[in-house]
Amino acid sequence: MFNETIYLDNAASTRLDEEVLEAMKPYFFDAYAVATSEFGYSMGIDAKEGLERSRKVIASRLGAQAGEIVFTSGSTESSNMAIKGVLSALKGKKDDHLIVSRLEDFSVLNTAKKLDKQGYKVDFINVDGEGVLDIDMFTDTITSQTALVSIQQANQEIGTLQDLKAISDICEDKDVLLHTDATHSFTRVPLDVSKLPVDLVTMSAHTIHGPRGIGALYIREGTPIDKWMDGGFQESDRRAGVENIPSAVGFAKAVELVTPEENERLAAMRDRVIERAMSDISHVTLNGSATSRLPQNANMTFHYVEGESITLHLDMLGFAVSTGSACFSRSLEASHVILGIGGNHERAHGSLRFSFGRFNTIEDADAIIDALKDVVTNLRAISPLSEDN
Amino acid sequence: MFNETIYLDNAASTRLDEEVLEAMKPYFFDAYAVATSEFGYSMGIDAKEGLERSRKVIASRLGAQAGEIVFTSGSTESSNMAIKGVLSALKGKKDDHLIVSRLEDFSVLNTAKKLDKQGYKVDFINVDGEGVLDIDMFTDTITSQTALVSIQQANQEIGTLQDLKAISDICEDKDVLLHTDATHSFTRVPLDVSKLPVDLVTMSAHTIHGPRGIGALYIREGTPIDKWMDGGFQESDRRAGVENIPSAVGFAKAVELVTPEENERLAAMRDRVIERAMSDISHVTLNGSATSRLPQNANMTFHYVEGESITLHLDMLGFAVSTGSACFSRSLEASHVILGIGGNHERAHGSLRFSFGRFNTIEDADAIIDALKDVVTNLRAISPLSEDN
Repeated sequence: MFNETIYLDNAASTRLDEEVLEAMKPYFFDAYAVATSEFGYSMGIDAKEGLERSRKVIASRLGAQAGEIVFTSGSTESSNMAIKGVLSALKGKKDDHLIVSRLEDFSVLNTAKKLDKQGYKVDFINVDGEGVLDIDMFTDTITSQTALVSIQQANQEIGTLQDLKAISDICEDKDVLLHTDATHSFTRVPLDVSKLPVDLVTMSAHTIHGPRGIGALYIREGTPIDKWMDGGFQESDRRAGVENIPSAVGFAKAVELVTPEENERLAAMRDRVIERAMSDISHVTLNGSATSRLPQNANMTFHYVEGESITLHLDMLGFAVSTGSACFSRSLEASHVILGIGGNHERAHGSLRFSFGRFNTIEDADAIIDALKDVVTNLRAISPLSEDN
Repeated sequence: MFNETIYLDNAASTRLDEEVLEAMKPYFFDAYAVATSEFGYSMGIDAKEGLERSRKVIASRLGAQAGEIVFTSGSTESSNMAIKGVLSALKGKKDDHLIVSRLEDFSVLNTAKKLDKQGYKVDFINVDGEGVLDIDMFTDTITSQTALVSIQQANQEIGTLQDLKAISDICEDKDVLLHTDATHSFTRVPLDVSKLPVDLVTMSAHTIHGPRGIGALYIREGTPIDKWMDGGFQESDRRAGVENIPSAVGFAKAVELVTPEENERLAAMRDRVIERAMSDISHVTLNGSATSRLPQNANMTFHYVEGESITLHLDMLGFAVSTGSACFSRSLEASHVILGIGGNHERAHGSLRFSFGRFNTIEDADAIIDALKDVVTNLRAISPLSEDN
């Protein structure tokens, strides 16, 4: 139906796995009751069991209890629910004070900006040149009256991992709740809430070959949080709306399919792309950390060329990569992430994000670098930005 | 995998249609980019086109423009977004005044109750014995400073249709916005927003054999409404979150599959069940209107028997029906709908809701009445409620 392209952008991880669809089918065609029908008849019980088994799979990957997982429509909803829900529940009990990092994805960042406009005090913590949180500034900003801290586990564009151990220890010390957006890191990078005092975790299915339109929010037992959306009493009265059981089952299957071996395979592709780009092409800057990053992410700036021009040329050659944020490449605004790590507009506009998924191979990694060498050379030859012009 | 049962409860319409899944597959496995990638490469354009084509299909069934349709995670979200979004946008411009009917489904009813607690003035309009809105009370309650009216098109339990023409004319006359929850009526009962001055319409896919976890909200162009969830700029900046394109495509396919002929076929099953129950079984009350009701809905009270007992016995015989609200049968609370039409607790607890879907036949309608005759007779023989005991 569509063209044959090698996807090394966010789409690399959004392609549904056939096994996920197979796991969902019984809940499309056989156990399709709404879960709350369980007292009525048998199929309701089958459907409910599928839902609760899925909840358990997701919880256990995180070191959590099943009852601490709420299914949502995706990571945007999870993060909105976490931040707005906790701040609202703590109104009058703590200061209206929220702390986030400057590199958060839009669901957290724009929620924070909205709350800032509504009168909350919101502090945006700086990061260093690799995207690592400025712990000193964070320590100076947090108080025991801070209501919530929201710091991502991994960055959506440059893949940098935060030191959640250090961050959560500081929060625990101040008795402040911590939310982390793990949209891109869940199952790819370890996170065990039975060991780290993280209170809320945003997760998504479609970033690991699961279905679109489903996510989850881990809420540590006892965490004060308002209900998200009004209506029925689903999800232990924390999120109204008929349960999306087929997608919950698909999400759990997607979690089960991610293995440590796969993550190592992705990391090998990542390392190959970074190493070859840095050695075979001149004037390349790695964006993000060289050592502490998502296994599936590479991000580099190819100086003296527009990232948009590169992606268009690569598309013609049958390769898909992204500029800037996956969710935002429509915008021609410079990436707030690259600017946040101290890059200028030229660096931001020349940045390319590579993502690796289950269906990529190490050959894809080599092929795209071969193509990139030609594209960058040709574009630089005609570029007014080039140092040679 | 599961037992063989004839479903005549809400599950009758929630079974996914195979054709819907087939329509979704290309967006699982081929055009799986996020729509906002469109400037990056070809697959993003294919995905975006699938999304926009789906939007158009849904809009055109409603007499709307594609740009007036926002995809959501389901009808609960649509109604929350409509009511909270409009009230928030009109704050300071109109009175904090919301009007709903007493029979609304929980997504509207509990949103209204929440707003009432938060200081909004909320009026709940009575209905008559068939569930039809008390137009006199409504006319006496609405003022030109009312911010929003939310009256369902059809009731979720007793199937009664409201006179949206009369209601929308009154709203237009007072210059007040009107939202209608069409979760159970969309495609089953005509609604043309190019003819009726309805401003917001809640729709759902899983009530018409479409996928779970996707719905839509029609928002008439120019309607003041706040953005739902913060994050990316998807859905023309009205609802953040990566688009669920496969499900949007499935929703559109589900809409296309509903035909006037099918609706007539459902109405024939409904009429058969009502007529035979009333003639073959004693002490039966029809709940809702005999003439103005959803084609796929029947609801009757079998006096001197508990509805829960009937459903359990029918389940053993291989039939699924519901008591009370589909989303709420877990609760043993009496249905607010049956109480709202003047029924007492005995009538509420003895009520059964039948729903008919694409995969039911007129033989199912006959078979369930045959079974019901025996079940009701046997239960009444041992019931302490029975007039004979």
